[in-house]
Amino acid sequence: MGSERTEISSLGEFGLIDHLTQNNETRHASTILSVGDDAAVIDHFGKQTVITTDMLVEGIHFDLMYTPLKHLGYKSVIVNLSDIYAMNALPTHITISIAFSNRFSLEAMDEFYEGVYAACEKYGVDLIGGDTTSSQKGFVISITAIGEVAPDKFVKRSTAQKSDLLCVTGFVGAAFLGLTILEREKRIFEETGAQPDLEDQSYIVGKLLKPEARKDIIDFFAESEIIPTSMIDVSDGLSSEALHICKQSNLGCIIYEDKIPIHEEARQFAYKLELDPTACALSGGEDYELLFTLAQADYDKIVLNEQISVIGYMTDAEEGMHILTRGGNKHQLTAQGWNHMES
Amino acid sequence: MGSERTEISSLGEFGLIDHLTQNNETRHASTILSVGDDAAVIDHFGKQTVITTDMLVEGIHFDLMYTPLKHLGYKSVIVNLSDIYAMNALPTHITISIAFSNRFSLEAMDEFYEGVYAACEKYGVDLIGGDTTSSQKGFVISITAIGEVAPDKFVKRSTAQKSDLLCVTGFVGAAFLGLTILEREKRIFEETGAQPDLEDQSYIVGKLLKPEARKDIIDFFAESEIIPTSMIDVSDGLSSEALHICKQSNLGCIIYEDKIPIHEEARQFAYKLELDPTACALSGGEDYELLFTLAQADYDKIVLNEQISVIGYMTDAEEGMHILTRGGNKHQLTAQGWNHMES
Repeated sequence: MGSERTEISSLGEFGLIDHLTQNNETRHASTILSVGDDAAVIDHFGKQTVITTDMLVEGIHFDLMYTPLKHLGYKSVIVNLSDIYAMNALPTHITISIAFSNRFSLEAMDEFYEGVYAACEKYGVDLIGGDTTSSQKGFVISITAIGEVAPDKFVKRSTAQKSDLLCVTGFVGAAFLGLTILEREKRIFEETGAQPDLEDQSYIVGKLLKPEARKDIIDFFAESEIIPTSMIDVSDGLSSEALHICKQSNLGCIIYEDKIPIHEEARQFAYKLELDPTACALSGGEDYELLFTLAQADYDKIVLNEQISVIGYMTDAEEGMHILTRGGNKHQLTAQGWNHMES
Repeated sequence: MGSERTEISSLGEFGLIDHLTQNNETRHASTILSVGDDAAVIDHFGKQTVITTDMLVEGIHFDLMYTPLKHLGYKSVIVNLSDIYAMNALPTHITISIAFSNRFSLEAMDEFYEGVYAACEKYGVDLIGGDTTSSQKGFVISITAIGEVAPDKFVKRSTAQKSDLLCVTGFVGAAFLGLTILEREKRIFEETGAQPDLEDQSYIVGKLLKPEARKDIIDFFAESEIIPTSMIDVSDGLSSEALHICKQSNLGCIIYEDKIPIHEEARQFAYKLELDPTACALSGGEDYELLFTLAQADYDKIVLNEQISVIGYMTDAEEGMHILTRGGNKHQLTAQGWNHMES
């Protein structure tokens, strides 16, 4: 937020929308009508449409004390795209609605939208509509993402099969540790005024503030002719997501602790805080990686992809959900997802 | 809100979603996958998809002191469906995201969703997804509505032609007067404790609290083979919407004051408050009627429909936007839409 400050009230609602959408480009020939009318129109040619929506609320999902608005705009889009990819679909369009108090300047909104447009550009998505309004307090963001998938190629949570491999992409647990360090530095700043030095934690902080969605994995699936038997994105922690797949597929699972991919920086920082890195991966959240199951026959197709880790396999429901620790112990997994409702 | 109170925290987020969606029915064969996965899937068969989104914020768009939650749920859906109808399309699906503080009980959310489901049932729309989260303060609702229309049959704001008739459905101005009376009664109650008697104002209060969307008009257009040349829904006041059509179609217009349809109850109540009924219709808002333009050749097709009033016609842009008063005076119309940003 620079020194210039334009009051949003000077533009009015329509002026603000005009301003915010003046550089909005459409990328898909299917975008017949975009921002500027009552609704947007999308054409389809024998594809299925995939829709998802997520709401982010200041003070609940993000803290503007350590979240740059541009990153927030980017991440707001990413969390929605991640849900579309988790269907094995490709996002094509988003709508975005925001409510904000008069504490925010036009420059602040520009920063936010800069992040939104950066994500749209990177992922090839059209912003086709939305709503902007005031709030009495705080900043609320609601995004709906729309995607497409070839008929019946979408992947649900409920269709895993017994003996399937349980796989996860990238690294898990880092975003939770990123949040932990930022919350800690915020307290220190409030108490002492000391500025944080996060240089050694750039991976885990970046994973929280500027996550990416796993388009690369969905592209890889298409190239390699892989269709996972079930899939979900990791937004509430590995354990919670595995439980969703088990419950909805009526299966159990075994996860091997030593197979859970944890980034070295995350592991070191967890030790520093005397936290168990595995617990951070299981019950942290906001990783936006993909958790999926795969027929064993497809193992050869993924084995060379370093972005995919096989962490366990699916069992009968009666066998429950367990983790096999490095020490050879078997513990029951519980869903300690990142539950906003408990706070 | 009855005497029973269940804390939402006792259910957790997923429990709440399960609870709120347990009676959710799908009506369209095209709803291949609905609530319960990362995203919803809709199939299409040569139709075009129409998407719109609207956010409603407590203290900005509604006051729970005089807005029953069931009505709020109903209206939240209606304002979105109205945008779909304004495209000459038929709504088929909605997603709904809500954020609410711990001031709200589960019973309160049930009431809200009762209204949501009532609107879905009445208008034949499937609720296919959403998000529920907490807020630090207040209640925020974001709905995305999706509709379909035969290819290239959608109606924009920008395609009105010179000499077209300017038409509006139903009555305008009543919702603004309904808001005025409720705000007045709220002040009286706060100052004196006196309960309001709104019996004589049931039409204008109902128009504010439980509006309907003009599905009947879109059905009538289809039956009568009418395609308006442009259309918009009246959410910000007649004047503001007429300006949108003029500006986006690069035209001017003349509106006849004596042709503006104002309900008798609204007119009488305006007089009681020493307000000009015409001003209420022009700059009020939330009527959710349709304002559209029509080729003069189609006049015969609408003349017998009592729900449609011809209020003026379109002119060259150079002639500007004017209203011709009962007294024979010509005044320039200004957009004094219901602008949230000015407050």
